[in-house]
Amino acid sequence: MTTIFDAPEEFATTALAGFAALYSRFVRPVKGGVVRSTGVPEGKVAVVIGGGSGHYPAFAGYVGPGLADAAVAGDVFASPSTAAVARVCRQAHRGGGILLGFGNYAGDVLNFGVAAERLRAEGIDVRIVPVTDDVASASAETPAKRRGIAGDLVVFKIAGAAAEAGLSLDEVERVTRHANERTVSFGVAFAGCTLPGAGHPLFTVPEGQMALGLGIHGEPGIREEAIVPASDLAKLLADKLLAERPAGTGRVGAVLNGLGSTKYEELFVLWTAVAALLKEAGLEVVAPEAGEYVTSLDMQGCSLTLLWLDDELETYWTAPCDTPVLRRGAAIPTVPATDILVDEDGPASYPVATEEGKRGGACIARIFGEISATLHDAEEELGRIDARAGDGDHGQGMARGATAALEAARAASAAGAGTASVLAAAGDAWADRAGGTSGAIWGLLLRSWSSALDDNAPIEDAAVVRGARLALDSVSSLGGARVGDKTLVDALVPFVETLEARVAAGKPLPTAWADAAAASKAAADATAELTPKLGRARPLAERSIGHPDAGAVSLSMIAARVAAALG
Amino acid sequence: MTTIFDAPEEFATTALAGFAALYSRFVRPVKGGVVRSTGVPEGKVAVVIGGGSGHYPAFAGYVGPGLADAAVAGDVFASPSTAAVARVCRQAHRGGGILLGFGNYAGDVLNFGVAAERLRAEGIDVRIVPVTDDVASASAETPAKRRGIAGDLVVFKIAGAAAEAGLSLDEVERVTRHANERTVSFGVAFAGCTLPGAGHPLFTVPEGQMALGLGIHGEPGIREEAIVPASDLAKLLADKLLAERPAGTGRVGAVLNGLGSTKYEELFVLWTAVAALLKEAGLEVVAPEAGEYVTSLDMQGCSLTLLWLDDELETYWTAPCDTPVLRRGAAIPTVPATDILVDEDGPASYPVATEEGKRGGACIARIFGEISATLHDAEEELGRIDARAGDGDHGQGMARGATAALEAARAASAAGAGTASVLAAAGDAWADRAGGTSGAIWGLLLRSWSSALDDNAPIEDAAVVRGARLALDSVSSLGGARVGDKTLVDALVPFVETLEARVAAGKPLPTAWADAAAASKAAADATAELTPKLGRARPLAERSIGHPDAGAVSLSMIAARVAAALG
Repeated sequence: MTTIFDAPEEFATTALAGFAALYSRFVRPVKGGVVRSTGVPEGKVAVVIGGGSGHYPAFAGYVGPGLADAAVAGDVFASPSTAAVARVCRQAHRGGGILLGFGNYAGDVLNFGVAAERLRAEGIDVRIVPVTDDVASASAETPAKRRGIAGDLVVFKIAGAAAEAGLSLDEVERVTRHANERTVSFGVAFAGCTLPGAGHPLFTVPEGQMALGLGIHGEPGIREEAIVPASDLAKLLADKLLAERPAGTGRVGAVLNGLGSTKYEELFVLWTAVAALLKEAGLEVVAPEAGEYVTSLDMQGCSLTLLWLDDELETYWTAPCDTPVLRRGAAIPTVPATDILVDEDGPASYPVATEEGKRGGACIARIFGEISATLHDAEEELGRIDARAGDGDHGQGMARGATAALEAARAASAAGAGTASVLAAAGDAWADRAGGTSGAIWGLLLRSWSSALDDNAPIEDAAVVRGARLALDSVSSLGGARVGDKTLVDALVPFVETLEARVAAGKPLPTAWADAAAASKAAADATAELTPKLGRARPLAERSIGHPDAGAVSLSMIAARVAAALG
Repeated sequence: MTTIFDAPEEFATTALAGFAALYSRFVRPVKGGVVRSTGVPEGKVAVVIGGGSGHYPAFAGYVGPGLADAAVAGDVFASPSTAAVARVCRQAHRGGGILLGFGNYAGDVLNFGVAAERLRAEGIDVRIVPVTDDVASASAETPAKRRGIAGDLVVFKIAGAAAEAGLSLDEVERVTRHANERTVSFGVAFAGCTLPGAGHPLFTVPEGQMALGLGIHGEPGIREEAIVPASDLAKLLADKLLAERPAGTGRVGAVLNGLGSTKYEELFVLWTAVAALLKEAGLEVVAPEAGEYVTSLDMQGCSLTLLWLDDELETYWTAPCDTPVLRRGAAIPTVPATDILVDEDGPASYPVATEEGKRGGACIARIFGEISATLHDAEEELGRIDARAGDGDHGQGMARGATAALEAARAASAAGAGTASVLAAAGDAWADRAGGTSGAIWGLLLRSWSSALDDNAPIEDAAVVRGARLALDSVSSLGGARVGDKTLVDALVPFVETLEARVAAGKPLPTAWADAAAASKAAADATAELTPKLGRARPLAERSIGHPDAGAVSLSMIAARVAAALG
C-alpha cells in the first residue's frame, strides 16, 4: 500500500524533487529527471538511463561517477515523454555522444527511440540499448522480446564504467550490448503493489502462493505455485538462470533484488542458499549485491540476476562507482584485519571443591533436573500466558534456558565443582542459551544467589536466604523493575521476604521454602489485577485487560517444584 | 509478511551469515555478531552496538570505518545474550576500552549491562549508553525512560566518529551521551509486521488509520488517528520534535526512516514537506538521510529523527564513514559541476507560411478542437475499457494529450505557422504532455503525418493520404506492433488502407475519410476477439478474456469525429 502522498498525480515529481534535495552531492534536478551535480570531462560518453517512476533506486539512484550521467523519470510505471528524454539528454551531453539505457517496454522503446531520432537530427550521436534480462518474459530464442527487470542495474553499471574509462561511443555501445546479452534474471512475486491513491493492488497473489516470472509494473507472473522454503526458492531461481549459462563461464556477477516489501534479512537468508548453489555449479561469484535495486513500489517479491563474466565485463562490473545506492571502492582507505578471531568463551574450569561442597553441587544439579522438568511440562501454558501480553515465547525461552542450566550444572558437578560454582555455571548457561529478557534475569538471579554459597562447605539455610536476597537485589537494580510492574519481581519479592521471615522464625528450610513458594504463587496470580508498566508495550486492545505475567508465574512454578524436592 | 526462510528459529542467524558473506569487505562473522574485517589501530576505543534482529541495517549494517567496530545480534526482536555481548566485545577490544550502544529496552539493558560487568571483571573498561530518542515512549521530564528507535543510527554515528578521531573512552562516552541527549524521534505506523513463521502480524492498525508513536518491536502506537496527506504527516512529525528544540539551536541533522514497507519514494515525498517545515522554523538541515535505517521487518510506517547540532556534534555527524548502509565521504573524488543547466526545450518558432498554408494551419487547429472535445467526452469510457487490461489511465492520458495538442496547434497557427508546422507542433505537445505509450504513439503519428503536408500550399487530398501512410509506417516500425497485437494499429491499418483505396477510386476526402473511420470502428470492436500480445501483461485472470483495446477504440472515435468535421 502506498500511503504517503499529497496529490497522487504529483507523487512521482515530488518524490524526484525530494530525492534531488537529499542527494544534491550526486544530482541536480532538471524538468523530468536528474543529471550529475559533479563535473564530467568534455568528450566523455554520456550514459542516460530512465523509465517510469515507482522503481527507486531505479533510475535516479544510479546517477553518479562510474555509473549514469543522468536519469529520466516518467510518471509512476509510465514511460517518460519523448520531450523529457530529449531534454535530459541535451543537459547531460558532453560532446562524446549518448548511450540511452532503459528496460525493454513498449512505452520506453517508443519514447527513447523517438527522442534519439530527434537528438540525431540535432547532430548528437545517440545509441540505444534496451535491457532484456527477464528470462520469464520470452524464450532464449527471442531475447529481444524479453523485458528488463533488475538486470537494468547490471547493464547500466557496465555501461557507466565503460564510459568512465573513456571508451568511444562505439565501444561503450558494444560493451553494453555484450553485458545485456550476458545478463539474465528471474523473479517471483508474493504480493502486488498499490499505486498512490488506488484502493486495491494492481494484482493479487492467492494466500500462500507465489507468482513466478514477475514483472516490475504490477505485471503478475506467468504461473502460480505454492510458496516454498528459502532453500527451494533459491534452487528455483538459480536453476532457471543456470539453464542459460554460456559454455565455459566460471565467474558471475550477481544481484539478489528485493521488490519493496521483501526485506533485507529475507534476502540475506536467501543469499546463503543461492551462494551455495552457485558454488555447487562451479561458479565463483564476483562482487554480489543483495538489496533493493529495482523495486515496484511496495510489491512483495524478489529476483535473482546473474551476469556471466568474462575479463572485460569483470573489469567494468568491479570498477569503482559512487552513486546514492551503488558504491564500489572505499570512501575510507582500509587494510584487511590481520588478527585471528578466537570465537570461544574459553573452556569452563572450576575450582575443585571439598567433599561437602561437591555434595552441595550435586544437590544443585539435581534441583535443576526438577526445574527443567517443570518448565518443559509448563512450556505451552507459559507460552499461552505470554502471548496475551508479548510474543508468546516465554515458555520456549524458559525451557531452553533450564535445559542449558541443567547440562551446565551436571557438567560442573561432574568436574568436581562445589555448590556456588555449580549454581553460577547453571546461571550463566541459562542466560546464554535462553537469551532475551527472562534469560538475562534468570542468569543474573542464579549467579547472584550463588555468591552467597560456599564451594567448600555444606549448604546452610542462612546462606540460602542471603543468596535469595542478593538475587532479588541484583534483579531489581539491573532490571529496574518494582513490585507492581508486572514482572517476575512481583513474585520474587514475597518469596524472598517470606523465606527470610520463616527461617528467622526458626523454621527449617524446606518448610520455609514451601511457605515462600505459596506466597509467590499468590502474588503471581494477583498480577492479573495490575497494569503493565515494563518491557514491551502491550497491544492497545489489551492495555486495560489485566492478565498474569508469565515471568511471575514461571518463577512461582519453579519455587513450588523446588519446595517439593526439598520437602 | 516475512516469507523467505527455512526454519523460523534459524532466520536471524542465517540472515546474519548471509549478510557477513555479502559484506566481507566490512565485516567478519563471530558467534552472535560481526566485527570489522578491516584493521583497527591498537588503543582505539571500540564502539560495539547491538540488539535484536529484524531491524536491518540495525545493527550489523553500521559496522565499518568511522562507525561501529562490531555488532551483536540477538534473535528476531530479542536481546542478544549476555555471553554473546561479552564474546563480541572481547573480539572487538583493541585495548582502548569499549563503548556499548543499544536501544533502551529491558532485555538489552540487562544483557549489555551484565556483560559490561563481566568484562570489567576481566579488566576491560566498558561504558554504556542506552539510546533514548523516542519522544512518544516517555515525557521530556523522564528521558531515561524513553525507548531507542531510529535515533540509534545518529547516536552510534557520533560515537563511531568520536572513537575514530582517537578520543579517549571518557571523551567518547561524554560525546555519545551528549548526542543521545540531543537526539529525538517520533514515528507513525500504518501496518504491523509479521515474525518469520507467524500466521498473523504482531499488531494491526485499522484500515485508513495510523498509530502514532510506533515502537520497532511490533509495539503499536500510543494513539490512533486517521491517515493524513504527506504534508500533514510531515507537520505532525516535525511539530512533535520541534516542541523539544533546545534554545539557540539553528542547525539539525535529520534521518527520515522507513520501517520496511514504506518505500523510498514515499519518504522522498515526505521529505520535501519536512524540509520545508524545518526551514520555516529557521533550522538549517545538515547531511540529512532518508531511507531504511532501523526497520521492523516488513512493518509499514516511518519516523523522523532530529539531532540538535552544535559545532562538536556537527563535526562528528558529517565525519567520513564507510559501512554497508551509511557512507560519508566520496569513494571517487569529484568536483562540483560548473555549467548552468538550461531547463528548457527552447522557444517554439515556426517558419511563417503563405496564406494558403496559414489557412491550412488554422483548419488543423480547428480539427484539434474537435478531437479534444471528443476525448474529454470519452475520457471515462476509455478509462473503463483500459482498466480491464491495463491500469485504466488511457482516457486520462488521451484527454491530457489532446488538450496540449490543441493549445500548441492554436499557438502555432496564431504565430502564422502553416499546415505541416501546426500539425507537427500539435504532435510534439501531445507526446510531451500525455507521456506513456499512447502519448508517444500519437506524437509520432501526427509528426509523421505532418511530414507529407506543405506549409505553403492548400491541403491536398493526396498529401493527406500520403501522410496517413507515413503515420502508419512510423508507428508500426517504432512501436513494433502488428495487426492482431491488440493496439491502435489494429484500427489504424484498415483506416489507412480504406482511405487510400477510396481516394484512389476518386472519392472526395470527406467521403473517403468517413468510410475509413467506419472501417477503423469495425476493427476496434473486433479487437475484442484477439489475445493481447504487446505492452504490459494482462492479469492472469484476464489473459483469456478478449476485450477491445482502448488505443484502437480512441483512434476510431477520433477518426469518426474528424469525418463529421470534414463532412
